[in-house]
Amino acid sequence: MALEIAKIEAILRGIAILLLVSTACLVGLDSQTKFVIVYEKEVTYKDLHALVVLVYVDAVAAAYNLLQLCRCSVSALSQGNFKGSYRYLSWACFVLDQLAAYTTFAAHSAALQHSVLVITGAKVFQWMKWCNRFTRFCFQIGGALTCGYIASVLMVMISFISAFNLFRLYSPKHFLRLKGT
Amino acid sequence: MALEIAKIEAILRGIAILLLVSTACLVGLDSQTKFVIVYEKEVTYKDLHALVVLVYVDAVAAAYNLLQLCRCSVSALSQGNFKGSYRYLSWACFVLDQLAAYTTFAAHSAALQHSVLVITGAKVFQWMKWCNRFTRFCFQIGGALTCGYIASVLMVMISFISAFNLFRLYSPKHFLRLKGT
Repeated sequence: MALEIAKIEAILRGIAILLLVSTACLVGLDSQTKFVIVYEKEVTYKDLHALVVLVYVDAVAAAYNLLQLCRCSVSALSQGNFKGSYRYLSWACFVLDQLAAYTTFAAHSAALQHSVLVITGAKVFQWMKWCNRFTRFCFQIGGALTCGYIASVLMVMISFISAFNLFRLYSPKHFLRLKGT
Repeated sequence: MALEIAKIEAILRGIAILLLVSTACLVGLDSQTKFVIVYEKEVTYKDLHALVVLVYVDAVAAAYNLLQLCRCSVSALSQGNFKGSYRYLSWACFVLDQLAAYTTFAAHSAALQHSVLVITGAKVFQWMKWCNRFTRFCFQIGGALTCGYIASVLMVMISFISAFNLFRLYSPKHFLRLKGT
């Protein structure tokens, strides 16, 4: 049964890695050049600083999930050999998974906010909208953000699994006391 | 012991409500009028749509926490009287707390991203910065966002507590089986 939940976790992590990498690639490789009035203008993801942050966060999150995937397979192979340190490992996984989930979620929300501003503009600040000129660029970013949000939801589910793995070790009657003791 | 964790939860929820309400008030009541070149200009939170979303999210989150606070005190008074429905209540609290934590976190990140843009501007898009003109307005928003982030962190901690309350009911050996069965 414990193997089953580990299998679900591994599958979720695998899909999350694929989605995170494709988000980072879609954003990072996106660029478009167009004539604007008199001069040629090129937009890349570096022009929107929220997207730069997003690429870094996605890369780090993918690397982290890859490491966790290795941990999953190692602990599946040597099951029961390091029972003593199991609780500390669960705590570490729990904290890191929560951090990863909240960070990716926040980064995607910030990028979405910036993208919406590029689409709508802000009249009060005399900020022009740009997406009617750089349409292909904007559609690619939209696709990337969709991928990224699915990855975020998967990471939230992974963080639920690691919370489950940690907290079920504790007694339902006494605060922060292990079930075995 | 179960009472102790309920007490911690109630205190955290109380502080979170205060912080959320003060964030919403600080943002909602913020406005500044200045002469810009030839005409008078007033900025309010309605000019930055991320801040409008933030005010609504904070208000809803504060109301939700108030409801939960009532639930805490009711379940403290009638302890053990509705054991059968305890698991479903724990599941509902867990899901709602997670939703609330992620939503407030995302809303604050989006608002922070918009505020950074107002401070820095974006040269490539010919977006001017505005904070050098509306300094007091910007400082008040900054203070509000700090309050809001502290509230978000508190809500994340509350969601940990509700995860703990739910998952410790389950057996550490069998997947999704209750400890008592």
